[in-house]
Amino acid sequence: MKDLKKYIETNKDRFLDELFSLIRIPSISSQEEHKPDMIRCAERWRELILAAGADRCEVMPTAGNPVVYGEKIISKTAPTVMVYGHYDVMPVDPLELWKTDPFEPVVKDGKIWARGADDDKGQSFMHAKAFEYLVKTNQLPCNVKFMLEGEEEIGSGSLYDFCKQNKKLLKADIILVSDTGMIATDTPSITTGLRGLSYLEVEVTGPNKDLHSGIFGGAVANPINILCQMIASLQNENNEITIPHFYDDVLVLSKAERALMAKAPFNLEEYKKALDVRAVHGEKGYTTIERTGIRPTLDVCGIWGGYTGEGSKTVLPSKACAKISMRLVPNQDSTKISKLFQKHFEKIAPKSVKVKVTPCHGGEAYVSPIDMPAYKAAEKAYQQTFGKRPIPTRSGGSIPVISGFERILGTKAILMGFGLGEDAIHSPNENYKLEHFFKGIETIPYFYKYYAEMMK
Amino acid sequence: MKDLKKYIETNKDRFLDELFSLIRIPSISSQEEHKPDMIRCAERWRELILAAGADRCEVMPTAGNPVVYGEKIISKTAPTVMVYGHYDVMPVDPLELWKTDPFEPVVKDGKIWARGADDDKGQSFMHAKAFEYLVKTNQLPCNVKFMLEGEEEIGSGSLYDFCKQNKKLLKADIILVSDTGMIATDTPSITTGLRGLSYLEVEVTGPNKDLHSGIFGGAVANPINILCQMIASLQNENNEITIPHFYDDVLVLSKAERALMAKAPFNLEEYKKALDVRAVHGEKGYTTIERTGIRPTLDVCGIWGGYTGEGSKTVLPSKACAKISMRLVPNQDSTKISKLFQKHFEKIAPKSVKVKVTPCHGGEAYVSPIDMPAYKAAEKAYQQTFGKRPIPTRSGGSIPVISGFERILGTKAILMGFGLGEDAIHSPNENYKLEHFFKGIETIPYFYKYYAEMMK
Repeated sequence: MKDLKKYIETNKDRFLDELFSLIRIPSISSQEEHKPDMIRCAERWRELILAAGADRCEVMPTAGNPVVYGEKIISKTAPTVMVYGHYDVMPVDPLELWKTDPFEPVVKDGKIWARGADDDKGQSFMHAKAFEYLVKTNQLPCNVKFMLEGEEEIGSGSLYDFCKQNKKLLKADIILVSDTGMIATDTPSITTGLRGLSYLEVEVTGPNKDLHSGIFGGAVANPINILCQMIASLQNENNEITIPHFYDDVLVLSKAERALMAKAPFNLEEYKKALDVRAVHGEKGYTTIERTGIRPTLDVCGIWGGYTGEGSKTVLPSKACAKISMRLVPNQDSTKISKLFQKHFEKIAPKSVKVKVTPCHGGEAYVSPIDMPAYKAAEKAYQQTFGKRPIPTRSGGSIPVISGFERILGTKAILMGFGLGEDAIHSPNENYKLEHFFKGIETIPYFYKYYAEMMK
Repeated sequence: MKDLKKYIETNKDRFLDELFSLIRIPSISSQEEHKPDMIRCAERWRELILAAGADRCEVMPTAGNPVVYGEKIISKTAPTVMVYGHYDVMPVDPLELWKTDPFEPVVKDGKIWARGADDDKGQSFMHAKAFEYLVKTNQLPCNVKFMLEGEEEIGSGSLYDFCKQNKKLLKADIILVSDTGMIATDTPSITTGLRGLSYLEVEVTGPNKDLHSGIFGGAVANPINILCQMIASLQNENNEITIPHFYDDVLVLSKAERALMAKAPFNLEEYKKALDVRAVHGEKGYTTIERTGIRPTLDVCGIWGGYTGEGSKTVLPSKACAKISMRLVPNQDSTKISKLFQKHFEKIAPKSVKVKVTPCHGGEAYVSPIDMPAYKAAEKAYQQTFGKRPIPTRSGGSIPVISGFERILGTKAILMGFGLGEDAIHSPNENYKLEHFFKGIETIPYFYKYYAEMMK
């Protein structure tokens, strides 16, 4: 890798300027008002991929937000790597907790602060720049395809059909993704498992209008009290989920596998300190790493009902709502789980309320085998730049479309994430270490090198 | 009562114009931004009381919103009636559910539609106009004092001190209040009991910032899930409140008293139909009327936490909050109950979260004896104008300051309410029947007449 470090050093300000031009576009996929920003962001990506050295790049329509597809084909015999990433980002509220404007990136304390700095604009863009280096220095050893979608944060709804309709175009030997994290700055790791997701919205309606809590309180079902009771009943005293058949398909790990997992470096005291909690909280019989890595969970992501303004209003509200996310593990089927949830939630509702359950999005868990060539190539690449062998880890997060790729395109993915747990993705003050951004750009070219060698 | 009906008929448009001038001032006491409106509303009341015939009327400062005090003293020997009401109103959200502007009164279908149309601008103003009639026709048989406060909807915080500091000024034989309802248009009733109130806000904090629900979900306490569990645990399967010692002081009614209560006209099917619920919901072993009349309750008036916007955001939030109101019955002490709640809520919090409990406001329950002269005078007044003997009822609502008057001033109150359950007070589309407004103005002068006769 001729002059790789020098190339990065020489061009680093431009790399950041280009990344910032993506970050400044508020491409929040879950909010209708940002539709035009989705187009703008896709177009900007297209310009950047072409500038990096692709032969062609297009903004291709889907039923929802467009997909940016670009490629450089060097030969029929070279292996093909498809880079997948997403240009959409999460909403930014609560906005008042941001120390800087979420869409005006600021570099401070060695980090980029902005929505999308890590997830996934910062991480995806490393690939554009690693690719640029290989092209400009005539060292590209693989065919490269780029596929960037605009709906990852809302479940990749349109990408499944896009893949089905473009199987030939998207043909590749491996899908390369940077949308996960590593254990620590000095501990590289490769994500070998992702959880699936089932996300639903529930609405509980009591009386047909808001009532005076004095005149009616005690005699009419209060939908907030009822919703709390229903949510509380979804977990038992061991924090196990009580939905019948919820655990039926869960892949149970052997003692040996759990022993191997336990070897990953983890400091519970530091973990608690970083989150400022006196105790962790989760399913009985499992460690913190197991609770996020190999066990499914149920979290209320949002709840609202009644009077939430300043001061005290005595009201017995008509409605209460919640958004509920269940993280799933290998073998669990998200559609099946959503149906189990819906059926159970409707069943436990008392006769005094009406319940509406709306499935929002879902996706399956994913496992990446550590004996495939792409894993070994990634392992060697990290060893080259970090001087350490990376640790295989299972993330608690979900990238539902990764299992979709396997199902639809028949292609495995390798997850080379450079984020950190402290990056506050999905939260206020998202950030991404400059060091990781540049280390990613430095590591990725080696992946192509070793992968091409192994696939010969 | 010479020409009473004629006087009302002749002046009814002016009466409404004057009332509307009060309603148009958005005097929402719980919202800081409406501070100037509180002053404007108090000043407007002062003008209207003077115009109605008071000798003097002043806007008197308190630690919070001012009190409007006015009087007409006819003699040292005549009995003194103090009219109490409030010029503040509840917030109007959810604003989108209002069919008309809450602060621009509209007359339609024989009703006034606006915030405060009933509670309590409409009901208080009947007293100003009944007083006007008696003064202008030289028939006033009692000394009359007016006291209108601006903090009833937030717990009358400043009125207690105002009463303590103005005991002599506020000396009266009876306090006359229209801030309650009657059973139905053709069924007059007098409220003989009010529930007390203890209102608190709770905040549950998990991790110190919003987290990615995938990466941390299952391993870190989710404050929404925990809050739901804590709230759910406050009531058992019989809908009894589980806070230790909560029921210790509850006045238990005899079988005979409960049998008497059961005689009040009540149609459960109509009640359910009006609220569009398939079943009522409340404490086991009690009827709907008992559940709101003689039993305490616990209602969540508002809850919020996490992502509540459009679409799905996978977040494990840092905080979740709720506003909780407990309606209390005679003998329960609101300060004691607030303390019991706080202690219990802190105790049941798991170690994985922090809990903050803030008492907001409270007040004691009140019982009005049916053998006092004011009750008998009110009874005769209703008989005169409705042609029926009114039924004594216990309201589930609270006017905390009523028990405060008894404690501080040593004066009982008589609750001659003309509202209806369907008036949607505290809700969108609050309304007040024109017929009730004018019937109130017609009935009140008879109260003065009979009360003066009985007190001779």
